[in-house]
Amino acid sequence: MNYTSFPSKLLENAVSEFSNLPGIGRKTALRLVLHLLNQSKEEVSNFGNAVIKLREEIKHCKSCYNISDTNVCDICANPRRDKTTICVVESIRDVMSIERTHQYNGIYHVLGGIISPMDGIGPSDLRIQPLIDKAEQEDLTEIILALSTTMEGDTTNFYLYKKLKPHQVAVTTIARGISVGDELEYTDEITLGRSILNRMPFDKSL
Amino acid sequence: MNYTSFPSKLLENAVSEFSNLPGIGRKTALRLVLHLLNQSKEEVSNFGNAVIKLREEIKHCKSCYNISDTNVCDICANPRRDKTTICVVESIRDVMSIERTHQYNGIYHVLGGIISPMDGIGPSDLRIQPLIDKAEQEDLTEIILALSTTMEGDTTNFYLYKKLKPHQVAVTTIARGISVGDELEYTDEITLGRSILNRMPFDKSL
Repeated sequence: MNYTSFPSKLLENAVSEFSNLPGIGRKTALRLVLHLLNQSKEEVSNFGNAVIKLREEIKHCKSCYNISDTNVCDICANPRRDKTTICVVESIRDVMSIERTHQYNGIYHVLGGIISPMDGIGPSDLRIQPLIDKAEQEDLTEIILALSTTMEGDTTNFYLYKKLKPHQVAVTTIARGISVGDELEYTDEITLGRSILNRMPFDKSL
Repeated sequence: MNYTSFPSKLLENAVSEFSNLPGIGRKTALRLVLHLLNQSKEEVSNFGNAVIKLREEIKHCKSCYNISDTNVCDICANPRRDKTTICVVESIRDVMSIERTHQYNGIYHVLGGIISPMDGIGPSDLRIQPLIDKAEQEDLTEIILALSTTMEGDTTNFYLYKKLKPHQVAVTTIARGISVGDELEYTDEITLGRSILNRMPFDKSL
């Protein structure tokens, strides 16, 4: 019997496309596709076109490389943002995370990744040169490195620090320590050790 | 500051569409959309169009209501399939599950759901009448009820049984009992109780 488990090539094709997404296996993909099959043609067309249109029309801010519907993103275009402070992040998702805290009023620089020799990503694959150009040409007071606290993140931090040091700008990094709400007992040794070494005046921690 | 957490309307729109899918929250939706943003325009267009095309062009087999690229599905069109035995299932997914077992050589009838008053699904919302018509008009020997073993499944089984009983066709249901590989200790009482009541000759169980 030449009957594979898919009753339709169209179905099989849609399921394959979905199972290419990260964290979506064949079973989940099938569930999602069958859900879409039960929707109206208009709803499914909205779904498909939203994704296609996003990819076709999305722009990257020519200043900070954040994604945007316009040539300059809302953050860079906002006159109330402090243009002398740049927060360096790995991806757009990190911009969104920091924005949600409502604690930062400067602008961003999205690197597009971190240096990871294992994945074949070197400094030239990232938007490092534009950052150095900014440090050279613009009147910056501070560059905040806000990368992941992984080995790759630390490598990238160190590389950026070396490149930025010659320029007249303070290079800082976001605080590392135990999370708010954490109990010491369950904190890993490295984090706890660092948070003791980097202790700070009590009146400044409030 | 009028900056919502999304830097782009296009992005927000795509994330909303994804988070309408079952089991996909806002965070997962964002991860999937950002993954697609990193793909080439062609790949994203393939993804979107696969879904749209599926919904536009998919057909339901006019005999068994299985989904199909043609008017009659591969199973119904297969001359080596036993057309006198019909297996009644809830959805297309169940057809695929049974097909994967390679233990069944008859044809199917996809109900499109089960009777569930809680969800407002009554007998008239399902493809029950076409099944009764088949029992009346065609030369069937057996109708196998293969619905979920839930209360709704049992209700539907009973309803179908009452409707099919007057016709010259054997109505059977798939065996219920302990799963292959299960230990008795961990089997629930109802399943174990039923499997004792419905015990069968050992030589038939091999």
